[in-house]
Amino acid sequence: MPNRKPKILVVNPNANAAVTAAMAEALAPLAGAPVGIEARTLEGAPFGIESETDAVTVAPMLAELLRQEGPRYDAFVIGCFLDPGLNACREVAGKPVFGIGECAIYAALTQSDQFGVLALSRASVARHKPIYRRLGVGDRLAGELPLEISVAEAVGDAAVYPRILARAKTLRDEYGAGAVVLGCAGMARHRRALQDALGIAVIDPVQAGASRAVSEILTR
Amino acid sequence: MPNRKPKILVVNPNANAAVTAAMAEALAPLAGAPVGIEARTLEGAPFGIESETDAVTVAPMLAELLRQEGPRYDAFVIGCFLDPGLNACREVAGKPVFGIGECAIYAALTQSDQFGVLALSRASVARHKPIYRRLGVGDRLAGELPLEISVAEAVGDAAVYPRILARAKTLRDEYGAGAVVLGCAGMARHRRALQDALGIAVIDPVQAGASRAVSEILTR
Amino acid sequence: MPNRKPKILVVNPNANAAVTAAMAEALAPLAGAPVGIEARTLEGAPFGIESETDAVTVAPMLAELLRQEGPRYDAFVIGCFLDPGLNACREVAGKPVFGIGECAIYAALTQSDQFGVLALSRASVARHKPIYRRLGVGDRLAGELPLEISVAEAVGDAAVYPRILARAKTLRDEYGAGAVVLGCAGMARHRRALQDALGIAVIDPVQAGASRAVSEILTR
Amino acid sequence: MPNRKPKILVVNPNANAAVTAAMAEALAPLAGAPVGIEARTLEGAPFGIESETDAVTVAPMLAELLRQEGPRYDAFVIGCFLDPGLNACREVAGKPVFGIGECAIYAALTQSDQFGVLALSRASVARHKPIYRRLGVGDRLAGELPLEISVAEAVGDAAVYPRILARAKTLRDEYGAGAVVLGCAGMARHRRALQDALGIAVIDPVQAGASRAVSEILTR
Amino acid sequence: MPNRKPKILVVNPNANAAVTAAMAEALAPLAGAPVGIEARTLEGAPFGIESETDAVTVAPMLAELLRQEGPRYDAFVIGCFLDPGLNACREVAGKPVFGIGECAIYAALTQSDQFGVLALSRASVARHKPIYRRLGVGDRLAGELPLEISVAEAVGDAAVYPRILARAKTLRDEYGAGAVVLGCAGMARHRRALQDALGIAVIDPVQAGASRAVSEILTR
Amino acid sequence: MPNRKPKILVVNPNANAAVTAAMAEALAPLAGAPVGIEARTLEGAPFGIESETDAVTVAPMLAELLRQEGPRYDAFVIGCFLDPGLNACREVAGKPVFGIGECAIYAALTQSDQFGVLALSRASVARHKPIYRRLGVGDRLAGELPLEISVAEAVGDAAVYPRILARAKTLRDEYGAGAVVLGCAGMARHRRALQDALGIAVIDPVQAGASRAVSEILTR
Repeated sequence: MPNRKPKILVVNPNANAAVTAAMAEALAPLAGAPVGIEARTLEGAPFGIESETDAVTVAPMLAELLRQEGPRYDAFVIGCFLDPGLNACREVAGKPVFGIGECAIYAALTQSDQFGVLALSRASVARHKPIYRRLGVGDRLAGELPLEISVAEAVGDAAVYPRILARAKTLRDEYGAGAVVLGCAGMARHRRALQDALGIAVIDPVQAGASRAVSEILTR
Repeated sequence: MPNRKPKILVVNPNANAAVTAAMAEALAPLAGAPVGIEARTLEGAPFGIESETDAVTVAPMLAELLRQEGPRYDAFVIGCFLDPGLNACREVAGKPVFGIGECAIYAALTQSDQFGVLALSRASVARHKPIYRRLGVGDRLAGELPLEISVAEAVGDAAVYPRILARAKTLRDEYGAGAVVLGCAGMARHRRALQDALGIAVIDPVQAGASRAVSEILTR
Repeated sequence: MPNRKPKILVVNPNANAAVTAAMAEALAPLAGAPVGIEARTLEGAPFGIESETDAVTVAPMLAELLRQEGPRYDAFVIGCFLDPGLNACREVAGKPVFGIGECAIYAALTQSDQFGVLALSRASVARHKPIYRRLGVGDRLAGELPLEISVAEAVGDAAVYPRILARAKTLRDEYGAGAVVLGCAGMARHRRALQDALGIAVIDPVQAGASRAVSEILTR
Repeated sequence: MPNRKPKILVVNPNANAAVTAAMAEALAPLAGAPVGIEARTLEGAPFGIESETDAVTVAPMLAELLRQEGPRYDAFVIGCFLDPGLNACREVAGKPVFGIGECAIYAALTQSDQFGVLALSRASVARHKPIYRRLGVGDRLAGELPLEISVAEAVGDAAVYPRILARAKTLRDEYGAGAVVLGCAGMARHRRALQDALGIAVIDPVQAGASRAVSEILTR
Repeated sequence: MPNRKPKILVVNPNANAAVTAAMAEALAPLAGAPVGIEARTLEGAPFGIESETDAVTVAPMLAELLRQEGPRYDAFVIGCFLDPGLNACREVAGKPVFGIGECAIYAALTQSDQFGVLALSRASVARHKPIYRRLGVGDRLAGELPLEISVAEAVGDAAVYPRILARAKTLRDEYGAGAVVLGCAGMARHRRALQDALGIAVIDPVQAGASRAVSEILTR
Repeated sequence: MPNRKPKILVVNPNANAAVTAAMAEALAPLAGAPVGIEARTLEGAPFGIESETDAVTVAPMLAELLRQEGPRYDAFVIGCFLDPGLNACREVAGKPVFGIGECAIYAALTQSDQFGVLALSRASVARHKPIYRRLGVGDRLAGELPLEISVAEAVGDAAVYPRILARAKTLRDEYGAGAVVLGCAGMARHRRALQDALGIAVIDPVQAGASRAVSEILTR
């Protein structure tokens, strides 16, 4: 291990600085570990990743960033639930790269047989289906429900909490979810209240991804 | 239906004109159908798609091309077995878009319970595994074998045929494949000889993708 | 390739000539391809295939027909969504044989992640379940809904269209289907209107099966 | 329950009386139960079921027989590992109908996590694959090996035992099978010796099917 | 086979003698077979198995009992739908051991493509999910519904029958179950009435497990 | 969060103190995080968990320990790859409980599409199969190979390293594993050398389980 304190770069692959700020806030609880964590906005990215086109747009930009920054960090985290460009980033970074979507789902599975997901929209729900098949977690998915809110609302609008809570209760009570994954970066500020209200684990993907990177570095 | 003859654009998403020429040759047998088919090289693309990074690089370029050309064609075919950017292309083209990888696999499944795939390399075999899971065809896959040849050899070197034949026979005799898919664009010139030698269906993905587009247009 | 124009035989495995006529009408758009297509009623078959007993009854009759006609055609299509006797027909025909059920499902999968099916009845829905498991497409099936109409109504009664449209909208909007398969031969006349109204692909199985056979012949 | 002793009809759906005799012998140990069991050859059937065509040929014959005999028996057993016409027979018999293939596999699964199958030939192995997918037992199948013997040899030739034993040991030791299913009617006479030699459960399908029918009648 | 009449021990792994009595009653119809069947309460067990903790508590007690009783019986049946300690019991008993949960599910699958389960409670439904995945039967499960009754009510209270019937009809009519499994030992007295009312197979797990053991002994 | 430093209890559910010591050594790298971690031997447990009987024996002992210690710790880790009694422990502990087997597999899946497992013995390999099905990770498993070494050798005998390395290379090169899981607690001392030699991630389950618990506490 190098003498310098190891560092993780968490990349927000959209240009919305409020999301990056929300990520940094979500990562604060991990500050106790002897690993530095930075959150950074991907310059030139679309303002949100709300379509397949947005996702393919940012993927090569992420790969290019990680190719450049590979030597300066010990691990990377792709900060979008869709894990855009994850495998390409792994090819070029020369360091471990984690996707927050995968990390959140697997974290949920270490705590419950069945997990639920809160997605931003119906379109997100449809977009996630092939991902769950690719990961092989479909039989563990209790259900996924759309919140029908924008990224901006998810990140900054306290008024959406009642809707988030209502949908999460439905996942728990009607779908049988024993853990709930927040299906978008930037919703971490609702996590604790939600977990306390539900009495089951609630997973923020940014925390899940960065935790996995920290663990990897500590035990490497 | 417009008065003009309908047109399909088959895009070779790498910059290797020999592959595009091989595609055009593969598409000649479809000329009898009342649909025009063009094969075009994606300008600015990498010379081959031989990594995850190559795949994410071409995806937004393909989406941009299809956004521009959407009004001028009736259907599009993405001419790479990995189907890069397929869903993004569908979002922007406003016309049906087919991936040659998916079309080849499903064509094989209409002819046999178990299919085999001939991949260019071991790395390709690994890259295809999550795709097969995403498509849900894993239980129909008899096996996939690497040829360990380059794209250039696949397209232009007649000397590789014996190796292709040997691997295909292994798929048929040891793995139980009842149909064999050529796992790369540009290998069509070996298809007929291989099918005759094997006595089972051999599917060229470019032909499979373009055939699907032609059928879609004829019956729309 | 022989000098004569290649020919495909599409067999309607029930004795209902109205279904055969509907098939022929569905196949007219494929007439532009340089392949002849005939639709023929299976003599002596039950008037409809509405039970497992009907399906097993026609299977050996189909195999016998294809054994006899094998030398005179270049490919065969079994014109029933249940694909009765498909593997037996392949053993005896000496030519490629396609089942319209399989071809329709795979055609839908080349256009959407999730497909829906419109079945004639609740009994049909139950009968299709093991078929989807056998094909391995269960995780791609958004849902299947019964129309509760007879074959006669499906083929000849324009009054059933509103019900077909309503069920198809449910598949799209509530089940998340991105393509809809007509789960019975003979419903093709509703296809275009339905596709235009839904804005997603609608697949007629007879067209899908015959298209696959035409493609096979053109590229063989 | 009627006053008469309940009766089960086990139908051998091929015309080989030696197979029917072997079935009767296999069923002798069940004679202690208060249920009568008859084994009968299907008149007019092919001499063996060694192809898909044979299987579709006997299916409607079985359905016709069970329609006629339905009132005279309390349950039926289809005596071929492929379970030809099983669902059609259920429609017409008006009594429970069991397939020996399904019953044998499920019996094996009540005794071991992983089962193996001894098939007559490579062609049988291929024919069973879609059946296992349809049943959903693929992940429990340790493996299936061909014996490359004829039905006649399986039924009547003691000289094949060493080969059966060798293949069964391979299933146990290399494939991890904890139970072995004899994949053809008529091999029961090898069952006990094989089980004693292997030290794991060996399932004869005819016994498994008839046992299931007896249990059903006793507890109905 | 030994001269003495072979004997099966069915163990009720809870301390509720009413459940053991209900089991003995359920097993009476099997008395005609030349095999003795005893039902025994597991001394020292919890009064019911209504939690994961109950299940892990009884597992080593069952293993210890079967280790001791192994030499005195020819087969064993674990009389709880969760099949607690089944594999451990198999290690120590030196005789075949059957779990009633597995046996009931596989018995249902020999009679219908889709099975339903009536569970005591919502908690039971959740507890069964990973079991179905482990067994690989998830795609055959039409659905499972909670009765929200206690074991005591299930065993002894005739007043619960209308609720059982209502839920079973829902499984048949809305979920498409073609066979219904009673998801708890001790409900056998409702089985025949339920089967007659539904017109489809209803499986009592204790009968299914003991039947499987009897069959095994008769054909060993 | 309480003022005291949060504490995790990692329980070694066998009586082998050398394994507990190896666990403590494996956990040392996590000492930097602001969470206390204790490793404790389960008193009265068998010396190793090498059978199903061992596993069911320790499960209620673990549940009893966690019931007692629940109030004194913030999270628990069950230190055996089989995760014995995990769900029962969750019922009684009132705190998050993690199984090292599950955590190791999911950690591997966050780093590679395909994982391999090094098991102690052939019997372990067989025992893990139903676990992988239950978890739903079978399609991500490249393969599992037995080391045929004892727990004592795994923990304390440096001479076994060449065999471990050889098997791990086979998993990587012949089975296509992109990450390797050590399938037993106590092998952590080989982890780093193995990872360096292989160039792919190697996961120690004790580290994976404790890391997951630490992450959970930091972000709760």
